[in-house]
Amino acid sequence: MPIIRVEMFKGRTQDQKRELVRELTEGFVRACGGNPESLHVVITDVEKEDWGTGGQLCVDKYPDK
Amino acid sequence: MPIIRVEMFKGRTQDQKRELVRELTEGFVRACGGNPESLHVVITDVEKEDWGTGGQLCVDKYPDK
Amino acid sequence: MPIIRVEMFKGRTQDQKRELVRELTEGFVRACGGNPESLHVVITDVEKEDWGTGGQLCVDKYPDK
Amino acid sequence: MPIIRVEMFKGRTQDQKRELVRELTEGFVRACGGNPESLHVVITDVEKEDWGTGGQLCVDKYPDK
Amino acid sequence: MPIIRVEMFKGRTQDQKRELVRELTEGFVRACGGNPESLHVVITDVEKEDWGTGGQLCVDKYPDK
Amino acid sequence: MPIIRVEMFKGRTQDQKRELVRELTEGFVRACGGNPESLHVVITDVEKEDWGTGGQLCVDKYPDK
Repeated sequence: MPIIRVEMFKGRTQDQKRELVRELTEGFVRACGGNPESLHVVITDVEKEDWGTGGQLCVDKYPDK
Repeated sequence: MPIIRVEMFKGRTQDQKRELVRELTEGFVRACGGNPESLHVVITDVEKEDWGTGGQLCVDKYPDK
Repeated sequence: MPIIRVEMFKGRTQDQKRELVRELTEGFVRACGGNPESLHVVITDVEKEDWGTGGQLCVDKYPDK
Repeated sequence: MPIIRVEMFKGRTQDQKRELVRELTEGFVRACGGNPESLHVVITDVEKEDWGTGGQLCVDKYPDK
Repeated sequence: MPIIRVEMFKGRTQDQKRELVRELTEGFVRACGGNPESLHVVITDVEKEDWGTGGQLCVDKYPDK
Repeated sequence: MPIIRVEMFKGRTQDQKRELVRELTEGFVRACGGNPESLHVVITDVEKEDWGTGGQLCVDKYPDK
């Protein structure tokens, strides 16, 4: 029944997301048990103009990342 | 004051969203009372490449849905 | 696969939550279709000291609600 | 370590988001202390067809806003 | 209509939360405009055993904070 | 910068949460790269009376789980 949500910078490929869902699901089951079939992962890509840290937008703070 | 959030696969029409907001608002008020004017519904459309279950991306698991 | 999240003031009974889950699930299926078995509802009770509106804590603004 | 999330109607400029991150970060530190470097702000732009209030989509209720 | 959510370590007083709601509301309006009456702030207190960073629980990493 | 959120039934021990944070952090970095120091994990324990699926509260549907 668990739900895992990931917010990360936009730019990962579908292959990385595929791998991410596999890794997070297997890691959850190793740590906490449960049935992987009932585990959901929802990914949100966030633009660097929509993420701030230290009071600055990441588009300004990390222009080349 | 309640806030209802919905995450669902992308692809519903604006008419379905209009109906959804009406249904969730009326259903909330029937079950819990309160003023519908102060109830918010926020909908997030999620791509099938951003949702995983059973360790797989839904774009792989449900390619035709 | 949809996930519905509800944030509301603390104080509803288990019966009201039971009814709420039924109402939101049936309402979603009427508006958008899909299988109710795969629909999740997660409820968060929020204390009035943890909710603000109009710049004030609800514990101050609505002391008797 | 705090995380602040903002959901608002789509349409603010990057300058407004830049200012928003600065305001929320400084406001948090004034009220609660802590190190601004470890404070994250994540902004979500919501379309008016994805936000409902009073049982209606905002695209219908506030067509000109 | 905006919704601001704050996740932070448990331990702030009601006075700090009161001040936080005021600061975030005023800061939002200065940066983005809008009516403060329609702005919601929802605060979530997170225990240090429920927050991890750098692969460690904060209860282990920052035992004295 | 990524943020991972986990919602799961209440009842896991602090050791399981410690292991979960390690697993999710390492799994994220293997799949997507990035610096584990800047990765946050926030865990929310959900009571079975606050989670519904198939239109029923989990406290009714899975009384013994």
